[in-house]
Amino acid sequence: MHYQLYYWPFIQGRGEYVRLALEDAEANYTDVARGKGGTGAMMKLMEGHKGTPPFAPPFLTSGKLVIGQTANILLYLGARHGLAPKAEAGKLWVHQLQLTVADFVLEIHDTHHPLGPSLYYEDQKAPAKKRTEEFWKSRVPKYLGYFEDLVKDNGGAFVTGRRATYADLSLFQIVEGLRYAFPQRMAAFEKQVPRVVALHDRVAERPNIKAYLASKRRIPFNEDGIFRRYKALDL
Amino acid sequence: MHYQLYYWPFIQGRGEYVRLALEDAEANYTDVARGKGGTGAMMKLMEGHKGTPPFAPPFLTSGKLVIGQTANILLYLGARHGLAPKAEAGKLWVHQLQLTVADFVLEIHDTHHPLGPSLYYEDQKAPAKKRTEEFWKSRVPKYLGYFEDLVKDNGGAFVTGRRATYADLSLFQIVEGLRYAFPQRMAAFEKQVPRVVALHDRVAERPNIKAYLASKRRIPFNEDGIFRRYKALDL
Repeated sequence: MHYQLYYWPFIQGRGEYVRLALEDAEANYTDVARGKGGTGAMMKLMEGHKGTPPFAPPFLTSGKLVIGQTANILLYLGARHGLAPKAEAGKLWVHQLQLTVADFVLEIHDTHHPLGPSLYYEDQKAPAKKRTEEFWKSRVPKYLGYFEDLVKDNGGAFVTGRRATYADLSLFQIVEGLRYAFPQRMAAFEKQVPRVVALHDRVAERPNIKAYLASKRRIPFNEDGIFRRYKALDL
Repeated sequence: MHYQLYYWPFIQGRGEYVRLALEDAEANYTDVARGKGGTGAMMKLMEGHKGTPPFAPPFLTSGKLVIGQTANILLYLGARHGLAPKAEAGKLWVHQLQLTVADFVLEIHDTHHPLGPSLYYEDQKAPAKKRTEEFWKSRVPKYLGYFEDLVKDNGGAFVTGRRATYADLSLFQIVEGLRYAFPQRMAAFEKQVPRVVALHDRVAERPNIKAYLASKRRIPFNEDGIFRRYKALDL
């Protein structure tokens, strides 16, 4: 199967969770909007599709299927590429964890956009500062503490046990992103979640992920994505 | 199968999307925390479960399965109770729509909590006002306009066509909630999405839903849930 991934070409954003799964699985895919036509085909498919138009990027096409929503794409890919159990119980469990990661990603985004996605960061600096304080005081410990406990209870390798799933790839990205966006805060926090950090390192060493991270296919972090480095928010 | 639903007993909140599906399906379930033991068993299961502890309510148990995350619970129930297609393509499409509803629900919550869930509304009134303006200016038209177009393109009955799915039950709840929280704004907005309003009415007339809404099992809206009526935000 050859997949087409549709996502914004200049950011990691939510598309990155899909890219990491496709890369780890050595799946055959085209990152469409990074090609010659840019975002043209993506916009056309979103606006013109008469059956199942996605609400927003990222979305993936696989034959006639058009699959939107990051966690839904991973649900689809996980079953096909050994990145999730095939049995229902395990499948639902990994998906549940991914949806929890998705909630966290939204809260990460809201640190710089507490007044909503339609205003610029520059227009919401003071509320962003306040939201970021709360985020590090209560939300980061709650989310990463939850995953830390899971890794601990499941034997210490990956979040659901001995085998990596797409949820582990996403947790890798969360650690990478928090390090990029909040270098000082994250450096101080990491000692509270040593198993999550070790899981991150384990994912980074997977051969396909390692090759991907070293390639030009990995877009660098920047201040248009989910994880943004704003000095005022890291102090 | 007898299900146990675990959710906060005094609010509709995210649990309501699950309750609506269980009620529409005439499923056999206990709303555990509304029983004698209150939230005790729920907290115990969240904190003490050694295999698959949920991050937060709502969660559902079905035999040995513990299923968390609203959309994930609906994915599980939809397949079993005729509230989603059984074939993969249709299943993924309904789930995708539900995840889009979930994103919208989070943005609805953020209108009164832009600085995060850990502070009171009273401590974030000014940012809440600003976020609410943006929400009605750009987000409500974008989300409800998307569903309006889907209903239109799919023939005018439900969001995916002639048969109701759990995504339709959730859209019903969105309309109910916006009417409760923002009576003036919503009254003015509804003419832009006549098909979504008609879909809401169609769901309200389903016999099991109608009976549920008239029963004591339906908790009234209040200012501890997702949809909160704050006069200052409706002006």
